[in-house]
Amino acid sequence: MRLVGIGEIRSVVTPELVFGAVREALIAHAEGRTQVPNPMVLDFPGASGDCHVKAGYVDGSAHFTVKIASTFASVNNGLMLVVDATTGEPAAVLADEGRLTAWRTAAAGALITDAMAPADVDEVLILGTGDQARLQAIWLSQLRPQVTFRIWGRRPQATDRLVAKLSAKGLTVRPATDIDTGARCVISTTPATSPLPRELFLDAEHLTGVGTDMPGKGELPVELFAGATVVTDHRGQCLDHGDYGNAVRAGVIAAGLDLSVGEVLRDGFTRTTSRSIADLTGLGVQDAATASAVLTAFGR
Amino acid sequence: MRLVGIGEIRSVVTPELVFGAVREALIAHAEGRTQVPNPMVLDFPGASGDCHVKAGYVDGSAHFTVKIASTFASVNNGLMLVVDATTGEPAAVLADEGRLTAWRTAAAGALITDAMAPADVDEVLILGTGDQARLQAIWLSQLRPQVTFRIWGRRPQATDRLVAKLSAKGLTVRPATDIDTGARCVISTTPATSPLPRELFLDAEHLTGVGTDMPGKGELPVELFAGATVVTDHRGQCLDHGDYGNAVRAGVIAAGLDLSVGEVLRDGFTRTTSRSIADLTGLGVQDAATASAVLTAFGR
Repeated sequence: MRLVGIGEIRSVVTPELVFGAVREALIAHAEGRTQVPNPMVLDFPGASGDCHVKAGYVDGSAHFTVKIASTFASVNNGLMLVVDATTGEPAAVLADEGRLTAWRTAAAGALITDAMAPADVDEVLILGTGDQARLQAIWLSQLRPQVTFRIWGRRPQATDRLVAKLSAKGLTVRPATDIDTGARCVISTTPATSPLPRELFLDAEHLTGVGTDMPGKGELPVELFAGATVVTDHRGQCLDHGDYGNAVRAGVIAAGLDLSVGEVLRDGFTRTTSRSIADLTGLGVQDAATASAVLTAFGR
Repeated sequence: MRLVGIGEIRSVVTPELVFGAVREALIAHAEGRTQVPNPMVLDFPGASGDCHVKAGYVDGSAHFTVKIASTFASVNNGLMLVVDATTGEPAAVLADEGRLTAWRTAAAGALITDAMAPADVDEVLILGTGDQARLQAIWLSQLRPQVTFRIWGRRPQATDRLVAKLSAKGLTVRPATDIDTGARCVISTTPATSPLPRELFLDAEHLTGVGTDMPGKGELPVELFAGATVVTDHRGQCLDHGDYGNAVRAGVIAAGLDLSVGEVLRDGFTRTTSRSIADLTGLGVQDAATASAVLTAFGR
């Protein structure tokens, strides 16, 4: 068994590799060609920590993956165990420090935002100032190089820091305020447990939410879902603990009306409503496909 | 992160270490001081394979553990990932080739058999001829050095091989036949999917079953449960896929009458019925406690 560190992983990972793996995994999931057992969760309230264990397999692929992702006192950690799907032998431990998860989440968000946001959107509003806010901007700019960004966060210093970081990467970015409306496309990346200010969404034609990934979280005001086209990466997970589930429980929209992200990526998207929302909770098969692609890249 | 091979693991593992860890874990579980998420299962019918992922944590201990155990074409494989429970950092991968699971299963069987079988039992009948049959005899003889063993298996050659192996270890052992009754204590270790011959159990005052660990399996004739005292390592798991669950579904005994293995290990056992049955399905906290004890032993 091979123990692979983050340096070695970075040496083979390209946007193309992650975009390709994530796209394939989401389409396979939409077509019922995956196994995604219910994740396991352990809680460590005394250490402000939790650990999520996700597993996934895309039918016919060379490997399956079990991922351990922990967050203790706001510090992410974890690894992916890649197992040979024909022999059951552990093939590699990818000690990725949580980066593969961050990248596959960013890739899924960028793919579905690119597929669903109107083609003439020239500025995207990113909500949140953390790692995922940064990555959503960077990865989307790979697919939509002309788009500029606004960043909104609760703490002005954090907002300014992220604006500076992204500007240094060559992106065109400015800070936003609570009353700074007008964004036609919004990507929400916060761990909020109560909805973000409504004003941020007043003009949104497309929203992608990646922050609501466990029970108790919720970033999107539920009324946004009224009459909207909803796409989900995993219907069961999104109903259980995504923003879509929050809206269903609030009675704003019915369960089961959602399209799957994979169908939209495969078939394209034709807008029939004034607002679309992509609710992403993250799938073990995204990890599996990405990890398998990394291992395959080592073999080349 | 440390990658630990089976040789290094063997160099620190003693019966005392495993008995101590497993006993502590089972008592902690009985007292509600553990986290045991529902296991995840992946199936690979094309490769005659499956993979079970179990996680566990004993409140207050230094580590939690995520275990991957696969069986492909009857070959077991797997490893345990040990994570620091205060920081979420991966501490070690124990590439134990499934041995820690085998040992903790043997230790649990031996502990509960020793606690429940009448003190004057002088011979134990082991059903099955595989790795776990061998280990149940060896580990029980650590706790009851005076006991002799009979081995029953469907294939006489396999039975003879195990008798020879155990004799070479210094145990007093003889082969049994289907009509060889009279055993007051029986330990059942088979992966049977239909009940073993009734004659084997006619005189059994205590039975320990460790083979029925997933849906579709069942080694004990359900009528044995009528009027018996039942103890389980995990009530939910045993009702879902243990021999106890098979008996409940057959209407032989009610759900919820079982004592917990941990209570019996903590408080001792006073016999009030003519037959007692210990149904063991295996707990992630046994893995966690054993793996944590191994890591702690490296630090000494």
